[in-house]
Amino acid sequence: MLAELKGLNEECGIFGVWGHENAPQITYYGLHSLQHRGQEGTGIVTTDGKKLTGAKGEGLVTEVFTADVIGELSGTGAIGHNRYATAGGGGYENVQPLLFHSQTGSLALAHNGNLVNATQLRHQLETQGSIFQTSSDTEVLAHLIRRSGFPRLRDQVKNALTMLKGAYAFLIMTENEMMVALDPNGLRPLSLGMLGDAYVVASETCAFDIIGAEFIRDVLPGELLIIDENGLQSEIYSVASNRAMCAMEYIYFSRPDSNILGVNVHKARKNLGKRLAAEAPIEADVVTGVPDSSISAAIGYAEATGIPYEMGLIKNRYVGRTFIQPSQSLREQGVKMKLSPVRGVVEGKRVVMVDDSIVRGTTSRRIVNMLKEAGATEVHVVISSPPIKNPCFYGIDTSSREELIASDKSVEEIRQIIGADSLTFLSVEGTAAAIGETGGQCLACFTGKYPTEIYPEVREAEKC
Amino acid sequence: MLAELKGLNEECGIFGVWGHENAPQITYYGLHSLQHRGQEGTGIVTTDGKKLTGAKGEGLVTEVFTADVIGELSGTGAIGHNRYATAGGGGYENVQPLLFHSQTGSLALAHNGNLVNATQLRHQLETQGSIFQTSSDTEVLAHLIRRSGFPRLRDQVKNALTMLKGAYAFLIMTENEMMVALDPNGLRPLSLGMLGDAYVVASETCAFDIIGAEFIRDVLPGELLIIDENGLQSEIYSVASNRAMCAMEYIYFSRPDSNILGVNVHKARKNLGKRLAAEAPIEADVVTGVPDSSISAAIGYAEATGIPYEMGLIKNRYVGRTFIQPSQSLREQGVKMKLSPVRGVVEGKRVVMVDDSIVRGTTSRRIVNMLKEAGATEVHVVISSPPIKNPCFYGIDTSSREELIASDKSVEEIRQIIGADSLTFLSVEGTAAAIGETGGQCLACFTGKYPTEIYPEVREAEKC
Amino acid sequence: MLAELKGLNEECGIFGVWGHENAPQITYYGLHSLQHRGQEGTGIVTTDGKKLTGAKGEGLVTEVFTADVIGELSGTGAIGHNRYATAGGGGYENVQPLLFHSQTGSLALAHNGNLVNATQLRHQLETQGSIFQTSSDTEVLAHLIRRSGFPRLRDQVKNALTMLKGAYAFLIMTENEMMVALDPNGLRPLSLGMLGDAYVVASETCAFDIIGAEFIRDVLPGELLIIDENGLQSEIYSVASNRAMCAMEYIYFSRPDSNILGVNVHKARKNLGKRLAAEAPIEADVVTGVPDSSISAAIGYAEATGIPYEMGLIKNRYVGRTFIQPSQSLREQGVKMKLSPVRGVVEGKRVVMVDDSIVRGTTSRRIVNMLKEAGATEVHVVISSPPIKNPCFYGIDTSSREELIASDKSVEEIRQIIGADSLTFLSVEGTAAAIGETGGQCLACFTGKYPTEIYPEVREAEKC
Amino acid sequence: MLAELKGLNEECGIFGVWGHENAPQITYYGLHSLQHRGQEGTGIVTTDGKKLTGAKGEGLVTEVFTADVIGELSGTGAIGHNRYATAGGGGYENVQPLLFHSQTGSLALAHNGNLVNATQLRHQLETQGSIFQTSSDTEVLAHLIRRSGFPRLRDQVKNALTMLKGAYAFLIMTENEMMVALDPNGLRPLSLGMLGDAYVVASETCAFDIIGAEFIRDVLPGELLIIDENGLQSEIYSVASNRAMCAMEYIYFSRPDSNILGVNVHKARKNLGKRLAAEAPIEADVVTGVPDSSISAAIGYAEATGIPYEMGLIKNRYVGRTFIQPSQSLREQGVKMKLSPVRGVVEGKRVVMVDDSIVRGTTSRRIVNMLKEAGATEVHVVISSPPIKNPCFYGIDTSSREELIASDKSVEEIRQIIGADSLTFLSVEGTAAAIGETGGQCLACFTGKYPTEIYPEVREAEKC
Repeated sequence: MLAELKGLNEECGIFGVWGHENAPQITYYGLHSLQHRGQEGTGIVTTDGKKLTGAKGEGLVTEVFTADVIGELSGTGAIGHNRYATAGGGGYENVQPLLFHSQTGSLALAHNGNLVNATQLRHQLETQGSIFQTSSDTEVLAHLIRRSGFPRLRDQVKNALTMLKGAYAFLIMTENEMMVALDPNGLRPLSLGMLGDAYVVASETCAFDIIGAEFIRDVLPGELLIIDENGLQSEIYSVASNRAMCAMEYIYFSRPDSNILGVNVHKARKNLGKRLAAEAPIEADVVTGVPDSSISAAIGYAEATGIPYEMGLIKNRYVGRTFIQPSQSLREQGVKMKLSPVRGVVEGKRVVMVDDSIVRGTTSRRIVNMLKEAGATEVHVVISSPPIKNPCFYGIDTSSREELIASDKSVEEIRQIIGADSLTFLSVEGTAAAIGETGGQCLACFTGKYPTEIYPEVREAEKC
Repeated sequence: MLAELKGLNEECGIFGVWGHENAPQITYYGLHSLQHRGQEGTGIVTTDGKKLTGAKGEGLVTEVFTADVIGELSGTGAIGHNRYATAGGGGYENVQPLLFHSQTGSLALAHNGNLVNATQLRHQLETQGSIFQTSSDTEVLAHLIRRSGFPRLRDQVKNALTMLKGAYAFLIMTENEMMVALDPNGLRPLSLGMLGDAYVVASETCAFDIIGAEFIRDVLPGELLIIDENGLQSEIYSVASNRAMCAMEYIYFSRPDSNILGVNVHKARKNLGKRLAAEAPIEADVVTGVPDSSISAAIGYAEATGIPYEMGLIKNRYVGRTFIQPSQSLREQGVKMKLSPVRGVVEGKRVVMVDDSIVRGTTSRRIVNMLKEAGATEVHVVISSPPIKNPCFYGIDTSSREELIASDKSVEEIRQIIGADSLTFLSVEGTAAAIGETGGQCLACFTGKYPTEIYPEVREAEKC
Repeated sequence: MLAELKGLNEECGIFGVWGHENAPQITYYGLHSLQHRGQEGTGIVTTDGKKLTGAKGEGLVTEVFTADVIGELSGTGAIGHNRYATAGGGGYENVQPLLFHSQTGSLALAHNGNLVNATQLRHQLETQGSIFQTSSDTEVLAHLIRRSGFPRLRDQVKNALTMLKGAYAFLIMTENEMMVALDPNGLRPLSLGMLGDAYVVASETCAFDIIGAEFIRDVLPGELLIIDENGLQSEIYSVASNRAMCAMEYIYFSRPDSNILGVNVHKARKNLGKRLAAEAPIEADVVTGVPDSSISAAIGYAEATGIPYEMGLIKNRYVGRTFIQPSQSLREQGVKMKLSPVRGVVEGKRVVMVDDSIVRGTTSRRIVNMLKEAGATEVHVVISSPPIKNPCFYGIDTSSREELIASDKSVEEIRQIIGADSLTFLSVEGTAAAIGETGGQCLACFTGKYPTEIYPEVREAEKC
Repeated sequence: MLAELKGLNEECGIFGVWGHENAPQITYYGLHSLQHRGQEGTGIVTTDGKKLTGAKGEGLVTEVFTADVIGELSGTGAIGHNRYATAGGGGYENVQPLLFHSQTGSLALAHNGNLVNATQLRHQLETQGSIFQTSSDTEVLAHLIRRSGFPRLRDQVKNALTMLKGAYAFLIMTENEMMVALDPNGLRPLSLGMLGDAYVVASETCAFDIIGAEFIRDVLPGELLIIDENGLQSEIYSVASNRAMCAMEYIYFSRPDSNILGVNVHKARKNLGKRLAAEAPIEADVVTGVPDSSISAAIGYAEATGIPYEMGLIKNRYVGRTFIQPSQSLREQGVKMKLSPVRGVVEGKRVVMVDDSIVRGTTSRRIVNMLKEAGATEVHVVISSPPIKNPCFYGIDTSSREELIASDKSVEEIRQIIGADSLTFLSVEGTAAAIGETGGQCLACFTGKYPTEIYPEVREAEKC
């Protein structure tokens, strides 16, 4: 029940533009470049200064936004959202941006992150007669804004934001202004850019590159940006901000061509691989990475050790949601789907297999097995991050990561389970150092030290 | 007109299985692994020993073959086809396998390659009253078989094959036998495998890996395999066979995890990169490859030169057929679609950009420009194959390669056009040597020495 | 603006069932028989005693409810809704039943009718911080219920209903009870039936016939029915109820096989035709009706006058929403779409053309013209209702009936405009008498005497 | 097997236009008005004088021909086809017009009717090496034309037509001419009209009315029309023509607003009803017809007897192909789908129920039962045609009429089976006389006297 109500915006991608005549198209391209942050659904809301118009749907950006659909949107301001695929809490209603019409004006909201006190706030609001239309955290902010007594929207928003706990990056839009808010720990990436005279905001800088925009700066923890016809204003609404950027954004979630807090993601990953080479030198014939997110770390590892990097595993580019799963009998016969070993590369070789993380261990076991069946004589698994021992309450999908193998098993026990000849994790210190100077990292899933208060019922919900 | 009738089966993927209770599903997975060989359309025909049943459509394997469609197919024999996207000659009718019913039995055909005398044969047959339903080369074979006077199908087929000139790999199926034929030059790859007691045939060995089948051997030039309840028989129908495997299959067309004539494609590409390093050593800070097909060569080049390999270009995984093209004004503003440069990697660096080939030069120019805009101080383009100076008549898509930039321009002229600081092609000898011992290669697009007779009207058609 | 917010539930069809193991299927068939009351969208919400599950979409019942969609619904209680096609206020969100989830339980609402004070109520609620998700009248009731302080739902509902003015028939469902409410004037039809031990409620009795249910009685003006595990209870929540059944339900809106307040609709229409024959006897050769709704009146007119009834006009059964409209040049050439004259019947004849009403006169003019082009020597138009001089505020679609031709034109002026040889309307008294004893009729669109207070801003909105 | 090969074009609708700038649109409207003749699939082929372009699909005209699809067709000549839903022989390939391309020109064919020697002809052609792509009769004509040695197409066509036996109306089109052929018995309706200077041809005259074309004359038995830039030429290719128009076209198949051989279909049906009144006067309270095809006959019966005509049965307009069939348990509970009785009309009444024919008797039994359950005290069934004792080999769907109840049962036995209080069929003489002077009728399904030779294997096939 809690899980259903929790909403789980989780890791998503958000994009906004203000002051551009092709705002809907620009947002389309921006969302397209952020597709890896969420594939369940997507939406765009635009303003032409007089009214908000929205379009959204379940599916990929290219599926939802046909030429017809984009053609019906117009305006110079727009916000957009890519929604992450979650087990519960799906459905058309939950696809963002949420759009609220009223006789005094409209409001659109897009959110990346996860609130840790959404359940309590929703309960209070419903007791007062509010009706929720979604199971999304995001709607809580809308009700808090509408019930705030302040006359100006910016004050309503600041008042509402101070009641929220957790990780969030919000885009808020009315007919004539756009607001951008980041939580006091800055747990999620959010960057500001310019495209000619227009302002753009995006979860990752790769969205700026695709549209040819210039990166200006990262949004600050506890900052509220207000963008309207008068340009950009910044207000710090939080009394105690303290950057704690999610390390997982570097390790596997973000795109390699994005820069987060000045650090290029591909480079960070390559550094993680090099550091791993230093911490775990191994005698082997070839290095291979698990595509796509571990390729950079594998190349770093190969470069540092001098062992040749080879394409030992191939990812099938055409596996879509409609791919027909093989029956049990076919699966046992060895039908592979997403990943194939390259026999010509690994046969008769000692293989170092680089992966970014181990969650439940089942995927790792399957890949090790694949490589051995393809003729690898030894498979050494090296992981470019520490063991994940603790759940994430800030949006990384731990609901599907219920059984964290590292929470109660030793490295040697995990090695036996996955069938590797050796298993090495990167140290916590090595991880933080390899990522580099970002002004503060959240390493809670490795260390258990959470940057915010965690409410007991949220902890409980994780146990279910 | 000629072009329309020519049919243009071009590069496609074919797959067959005989003697497996899940023949349709096995074919689905096989075609899925061969998706890179053709995305325009796909089809499967099955036999249950009594009748042939087919399903086909325009689109990807996962789009055409939903669970419902696959569920309606059954049988222990099946052949399938992936069709390459061609400018003309498209449409549902041309999607293969072609299926012909008659009162004396049915016939299904799947074809990879291109006949050079299809136009003449079709003309003769139509003059005799035959009615063609498609503009595909493949149908010519069906009419030749039906008009052959021989009583046994295998003799009808052999008689028909001797009239064909060009490149072809055919799968032919009736209610109770499957035949496999390769042209006398063996221009296209075609391999035989076993899955338990069942025989499987595929354009590339990666299809065997995905279903867990064992590779047996490559089909021989001028060989006809007949597979039925009595097992496998081989007949050599051609008096003068001479292997001339298309070098482009190694350079860019096949999947890196496939082995062609005993040579792994990834390894061949890495060798091409290493050879290039030997022929063209360059002073630079980073090496990057144009994804996906040039990554292997780039890694080989980096390994041989010691210059670090970096991810300097990112390919967008979600660009589909429904992706909305940016308007001219947006395009000029710099909206990128398929490929993005990684600023954090190339900024302030001398970049070696490895690509597999240059056809018209427009793509190369765009990428060089992209890298420079992202801050690269120098861009050195190295190509892991020789200049393409001649059209291909055997199926590689030269119809969209009409303006071969190398046909009348020098390397220096091309370098200026694409805006690179230097440009190097691999030598023909280097190419042949790097690919290695395959028993004979076709390098005609580089050298102009075609392994078969080329009819004047085919040469003419290429000029249009 | 007002028009947009007004919501315009207008004429719709509602259906509910309680206590049947096939509640979703039963509701599907019920809605299907009520399809004529609304074709824009349709939805069903079911309860299994623990939670409410809904499915809805834009389109016809057979389009929205595929076997898959119906298969995902289960439960023993269900309510459903067919939405009328309106110019503004469309979209997925407005498709009913509306479904509201909260931590203290869920609520589903389906509504047929139109509130005349929805704008004021919405304004008050928004000022208090309520957020509306739709532009539908129906949502007002949900907010009034949630903000009512009463502990029991039935008291919350009664409290909320007393604030509403206008025409409404509501179905309300929670996890464990279904409520049925009719406005104090009973402007819209709503009947109660039984299907075995299960209760069923529907806008028209034809829904009972299709599922084999037995008609019990009509719901009373100002009555609230509460149906739960204890059976059926009735409460009269209105202090001053006074039946005023919409005469248009008989004249053209309802299905001929339905009985409203004990009067069969086909018979009422035939009576209207007979009465018209008495009021307007005409010398002619054939009588024809405009299909489908005027056929009954035409047969009554023919029977009473002795002039043969003929099929002088044919309605095309296959005109759907995707029918391609002819271009202007083709239209002028005479391309007909929905209605065709039967030349073999009308050529050389004096024709009496019976229609149910004239709104703007354009359709009538087109049909008269058609009949004359097909060879009719005279066309006498007889209308089985009085001139419509006043807008309807209770749900009949006057928004698309903006230009009521009879509001400022005499009968003779209208005759000239439509090009008829004579034109006769039925008298108001004749209309009331032909429909018969129904305990009170609303004839406001003919007489201007509205049974409820009409708010000035609603009157204004009609002027736009 | 025979049945599968037989093809079964059966009753279909064909339409052609020559010399009109909006030929594709005109054909769309024409096919739309002929939709009742076939709902399985539809297609249009156009010519612009240089090439033939076609579009076709399974489904209704409005489903297959979206604005996009029609927009891609252009030209001044067009032929179109509506295909009847048949049990076997369906599929995209069989949707007409069939379109054949060759190097010497293209050919399009559309066909209404059924050949009785198609199987023999196909067998001969296949033995000679021809490959058939469809299981349709129509393709036989194409092969006969292509194999004919004559130099001019019109001679090839005449030569081919003389080999065909059975019922057929053909439209044949090349890049620069259109031909129209009717079998020597003129079993199927086919009319010629003009739309300005353009020629139009259609299965029924209702297609002329919808596009505003003028009826010129009916095509003659054994006539071949050739329409090209020189205008219209007529040739009689058959030595012994003898009109035998299918009586069923009047009785139930054609549209009431069509005229066949000068007789209006509605009037013919009304006459059948009047003649039935004369042959079978019954004491009753109300007359009702089974919609839609028996309404005219019922009105004629009511007019002749003076018994009031009432709407005792309602047909549901929204039953589409996607309508979900009720489960057995719901069906037993009385869920009705296509047809509903009107309780308010039939309760306590003696009902005369007029239907056009009885094939297997199951539908009649169901309707009689429905009326009795709705309270009819007596149900007298009167049929406006004689008992069908013999199969049709000319296209009327007797494949789904396998069990002709009248072939071995007496009228009294049928009455008992359907549960009527009385049952009357119209006499053969009465039927012929009521339809009137049409120059020769085919009454073979009543009398067994077939106007053409019937081949033994066709007779056999009917027995399966």
